[in-house]
Amino acid sequence: MSILIQNVQHEKQVVDVFIDGNTISRIGSDEGISADTIIDGNNKAILPTFHNAHHHAAMAYMRSYADDVELFTWLDEHIWPLEATVSEEDVYHGTKLACLEMIKSGTTFFNDMYWYFHGTARAVEEMGMRAALGAVFIDMGDAGRRATNREMAQALLEESKQYSDRISFQLGPHAIYTVSTEALTWCAEFAGEHQLMIHTHLSETKREVDDCLKEHGMRPVEFLDSLGLLAPNLTAAHCIWIERDEMELMAERGVKALHCPTSNMKLCSGKFRFRDAQAAGLQVAIGTDGAASNNNLDMSEEIKMAALLEKHFTGDPTALPAPTVWHAGTRSAAQMFNLNSGFIAEGALADCMLVDLNNERLAPGHNLIADMVYSADSSCVDTVICDGKILMQNRHVEGEEEIIAKGREFKAKFRR
Amino acid sequence: MSILIQNVQHEKQVVDVFIDGNTISRIGSDEGISADTIIDGNNKAILPTFHNAHHHAAMAYMRSYADDVELFTWLDEHIWPLEATVSEEDVYHGTKLACLEMIKSGTTFFNDMYWYFHGTARAVEEMGMRAALGAVFIDMGDAGRRATNREMAQALLEESKQYSDRISFQLGPHAIYTVSTEALTWCAEFAGEHQLMIHTHLSETKREVDDCLKEHGMRPVEFLDSLGLLAPNLTAAHCIWIERDEMELMAERGVKALHCPTSNMKLCSGKFRFRDAQAAGLQVAIGTDGAASNNNLDMSEEIKMAALLEKHFTGDPTALPAPTVWHAGTRSAAQMFNLNSGFIAEGALADCMLVDLNNERLAPGHNLIADMVYSADSSCVDTVICDGKILMQNRHVEGEEEIIAKGREFKAKFRR
Repeated sequence: MSILIQNVQHEKQVVDVFIDGNTISRIGSDEGISADTIIDGNNKAILPTFHNAHHHAAMAYMRSYADDVELFTWLDEHIWPLEATVSEEDVYHGTKLACLEMIKSGTTFFNDMYWYFHGTARAVEEMGMRAALGAVFIDMGDAGRRATNREMAQALLEESKQYSDRISFQLGPHAIYTVSTEALTWCAEFAGEHQLMIHTHLSETKREVDDCLKEHGMRPVEFLDSLGLLAPNLTAAHCIWIERDEMELMAERGVKALHCPTSNMKLCSGKFRFRDAQAAGLQVAIGTDGAASNNNLDMSEEIKMAALLEKHFTGDPTALPAPTVWHAGTRSAAQMFNLNSGFIAEGALADCMLVDLNNERLAPGHNLIADMVYSADSSCVDTVICDGKILMQNRHVEGEEEIIAKGREFKAKFRR
Repeated sequence: MSILIQNVQHEKQVVDVFIDGNTISRIGSDEGISADTIIDGNNKAILPTFHNAHHHAAMAYMRSYADDVELFTWLDEHIWPLEATVSEEDVYHGTKLACLEMIKSGTTFFNDMYWYFHGTARAVEEMGMRAALGAVFIDMGDAGRRATNREMAQALLEESKQYSDRISFQLGPHAIYTVSTEALTWCAEFAGEHQLMIHTHLSETKREVDDCLKEHGMRPVEFLDSLGLLAPNLTAAHCIWIERDEMELMAERGVKALHCPTSNMKLCSGKFRFRDAQAAGLQVAIGTDGAASNNNLDMSEEIKMAALLEKHFTGDPTALPAPTVWHAGTRSAAQMFNLNSGFIAEGALADCMLVDLNNERLAPGHNLIADMVYSADSSCVDTVICDGKILMQNRHVEGEEEIIAKGREFKAKFRR
């Protein structure tokens, strides 16, 4: 399979882009090239796709189910009771809806954590995206649940091999307040043994820090370090309540921070200090979190939010300029997962999008990256390619009507 | 001219909506009704359109021209030098581009302030929207400029009558630091005499307050009150650096506050205290400000930003729930301008939109208003009607290709 995109804008030039298999193999002239599929790139620009660094995709089924309430009311009275009733089939359909929304807004990779690994994996496989899927590990200090979770992780390590290499299996210990010390230690060891990534939540609320200090006499970052969790294979979401020395320790250990500005603002969790984290040497990527706390999965909105929040918080309008958040929404998460994507170059994975330069939001067109960060919405994304396959063209994704119809069934199913 | 929208969702019911002339004349059954135009409302919901409370529409021509810089660098080195070179024709084309973007994201009214009244008015007239257009008044203390501005306002009062009643003329004294005391006083008197609205910027930066205290021994709100400006016909943008007693005085005088969260965050102007203002009895509406400081004109994004910023700022996730910001983005600005729009009811103006319930962002559909605030983007808006005329259907606006082509010409024209 090969694709030739003709006369497309790439940075300041108009070029032809040749995709061979899953790789961008040539950028320049199409002389002497024939391809299975030809795409007219006139009045379009080729850009890397977004990489969503922290997500719970299946939660699309509870978009706008409970908003504008206190965090623990939200969890205890709305989110957790509903989650207790869902099946693998629900997770499958919820994830398909999420994937559809991500593709339509230019995202091809996400870093996930949720129940029912196979429900999520099947959806990702069918939708043609890439994802790192973390099986949630929560034992609440219960030895029985711990054993079950361990066995599940061990089984999934094998079972996950049935999927294509677009899907990678990782561990998903939820957070220090839901996972026991024994389980966290086991995760670090098991991941080390099998070269797995670990996806967790870290220092999202002040209460988490206070409780950790009370229980362990250490702040969460120090506590995780004492268990051997702080390592280059750890991606940690939120990282709001961390001090400068914690940032430095995380950077030294190679831990990655995942910033979710919308979710943090909506749930009033606090403010991740992006610029301070960067100054401390921490690698940062941006994610939407789940639809229940955002409520969309739109990375173009998320990177704008990250830039605006940092400017507002620091009082410095030069903080997080457009190219910085663009990188944090595209290349950064790809690097964390050793993916050769998130940029457009010969030899890179063919994970890319074509944006319509004749969309009103990209006019006059003084600066495309600034337009993508501050002005664009999903209506600007015309074509999405992942792993050398076309997932969307002319804003249409194959089978989208059925996916949405299935998604709308959740409304009746979860009626309160 | 009449329009019949059949089988459309309105609140919890499926109804037929009959639009006769520029008014919603019947909501219920279409029995016995015939209409010039029939719209199939299946799988669509009818909602009021957005009303953008503070705007400089023509500035769409400088979208993404200068970002991520200090406010005074931005104004002195980028915005003002560029503005000094534009013509009425540029304003006309810039405004058409802005109107197109607003229509495509569900906005039918905006409260504007810019140079070249006729350029803006012609664009609004052709695009079929409603607007309150303020002729900018800036004299910088210069008697000659003051006389010219006064004469211009007097002439425009007459000349503006050539346009339809969708366009209302108002005064636009820019701010207390660009308009002399004499000119401000004249504006108050002239507006009173001719029943005109006044659109201004108020207490946007701390520097404005400090300078006012130094020069007049009063804070800006008190200063405007001393000149007779604080009255029900005044809409004041930003209102960031105001104390509780100033809010109360503004509320007592019937002044309206216009909140622009994105622009305020991007330029680091500070934080308008929405909840405090409401508690003080101030009427608040939400606006995007111009494209140069946003950089889009999307009210669905703006009301989300208002909700998130208030939650983050107050630390209270229940602050500004979805229905509150929805009202502030729809009905509130309509009320300020005595427009019978911003809501769907028999007898209301036929200013409405149909959103596509089969858009992925509105699925599952647990709560439509929460979805519109937190999840929707322009791709959800299918049809826009203003004053009983269809401005967009199936996401297409007549002539949009030409408007965008004209808009893209600004890129070459203003190349740096």
